[in-house]
Amino acid sequence: VIPRLVIVGVGLLGGSVAKAARARGLARTIVGVGRDQTRLADALHDGALDQATTDLSVGLRGADLVILAAPVLTIERLLGSVASAVGPETLVTDVGSTKGSIVRAADTLSASRPFTFVGSHPMAGSERAGYAVARADLFDGATVIVTPTDATIPRATKEVSALWEGLGARVSHLDPGSHDRVVAAISHLPHLAAFALVAGAHRFEPPALRFAARGFRDTTRVAASDPVVWQEIFHGNRGALLASLRSFRDMLDEVERLVVADDVGALQAWLAEVKALRETVR
Amino acid sequence: VIPRLVIVGVGLLGGSVAKAARARGLARTIVGVGRDQTRLADALHDGALDQATTDLSVGLRGADLVILAAPVLTIERLLGSVASAVGPETLVTDVGSTKGSIVRAADTLSASRPFTFVGSHPMAGSERAGYAVARADLFDGATVIVTPTDATIPRATKEVSALWEGLGARVSHLDPGSHDRVVAAISHLPHLAAFALVAGAHRFEPPALRFAARGFRDTTRVAASDPVVWQEIFHGNRGALLASLRSFRDMLDEVERLVVADDVGALQAWLAEVKALRETVR
Repeated sequence: VIPRLVIVGVGLLGGSVAKAARARGLARTIVGVGRDQTRLADALHDGALDQATTDLSVGLRGADLVILAAPVLTIERLLGSVASAVGPETLVTDVGSTKGSIVRAADTLSASRPFTFVGSHPMAGSERAGYAVARADLFDGATVIVTPTDATIPRATKEVSALWEGLGARVSHLDPGSHDRVVAAISHLPHLAAFALVAGAHRFEPPALRFAARGFRDTTRVAASDPVVWQEIFHGNRGALLASLRSFRDMLDEVERLVVADDVGALQAWLAEVKALRETVR
Repeated sequence: VIPRLVIVGVGLLGGSVAKAARARGLARTIVGVGRDQTRLADALHDGALDQATTDLSVGLRGADLVILAAPVLTIERLLGSVASAVGPETLVTDVGSTKGSIVRAADTLSASRPFTFVGSHPMAGSERAGYAVARADLFDGATVIVTPTDATIPRATKEVSALWEGLGARVSHLDPGSHDRVVAAISHLPHLAAFALVAGAHRFEPPALRFAARGFRDTTRVAASDPVVWQEIFHGNRGALLASLRSFRDMLDEVERLVVADDVGALQAWLAEVKALRETVR
């Protein structure tokens, strides 16, 4: 049991950590830090939080484990204040969806003072945001990627991983660079492609979108995602996103050659290979 | 009421036409033509068909309306035999998912003899195939694109459109070329992109597919489609597919420039514009 769990940002992810930790009895005292006291009041009223404050330094006092549950750029901004406010015995993690820049910032901070950080990315989310959609079972069966580096204190990796497992998740470990390439390949590039398919269909043959059926709706569902959130994500994972985009274009060139060559066997063999790969996805 | 409706190919689409026409009382006699008498027996037994034969010329005798419900290449092969077997009073249509080559073949045939054809593409389908999955409500609310040309006899367009409407569908008219560009943009290119995203993710960062979550599963669901079917579709609509692929790559280049430029406002504005377009898709 974590004596004092502090959650900075009590929205969908932070609120779900609070609810799940409460439901599973993983923490004695759960403290929420937010910008808006009235929104924190809902979580207090639910019993998900024991204490709530809009003052970060007050919230961090005596923290055993701190989770920064904010957008990526906010997490990067918060890290310095958190590192100044806590001692080395306090474990700090986050929920940011890109890890390279956050972990680099934390490693830089821990070079000059004792700061016990390891990055996390719970791959659970929703198009919707805010505490109102937080759920105690959000992490049930979800994957959480924890991203230790050579500089990470092993206890941080072990205890943060144990927390996510306690919340119901399956934990995998990847270095931050591999993590960012993985999420570029399975999330950021597919979003970018979906946006481009929608814009491209409209430009290529203007009546096309009127005829979109189930396949197109599924393939491009994510193109209805929030522009501000996705601009930030594309920015935050720019390096890996652009590398995966170049790789995707090479792949499109190869498929184009297969279609142009009109070699029935070669195209069928490639499609069958991709279908088999796709079927490995749960 | 159509006195004698002949369906060539009693699988998912042909079987659904039979069941829906029967349920809605649109035809007096429904005749099924197939390659395998035992499979036709199921449709006879269900009461969806009144007669079934494996002999095309027997099946076509006395037909008022003929629907060729086979894969595209089979439809093209069948057209000549059908044109020889029926008179100009018999209306012929098809369900092929590409229209340019089929309609060109039919127009060529009707230049040398009276042959009353108009193309159709019911945009209803499934990953599954065969009479076993045919449903009387398959066309309920579905879109059917009917593709008349300057050579098409207006009565064919009118009566074939009325049949699809009678089966519950919404009918739109497009020339065959526009049809093929529309389906390239909303179906064939998105399939190709989904195949390339799966293959590309695996090549770019091999563990990536292990972490695929809901967004990726939706975006690439169609990459589990049948390789033989999709090789044929890519082949059949090659011209429009390659044109839409070039247009898609131009779009990706533009998005890449937006990401590289790291202009927050420009990227957000583009994403917002695409989101609005996506929201026009029902």
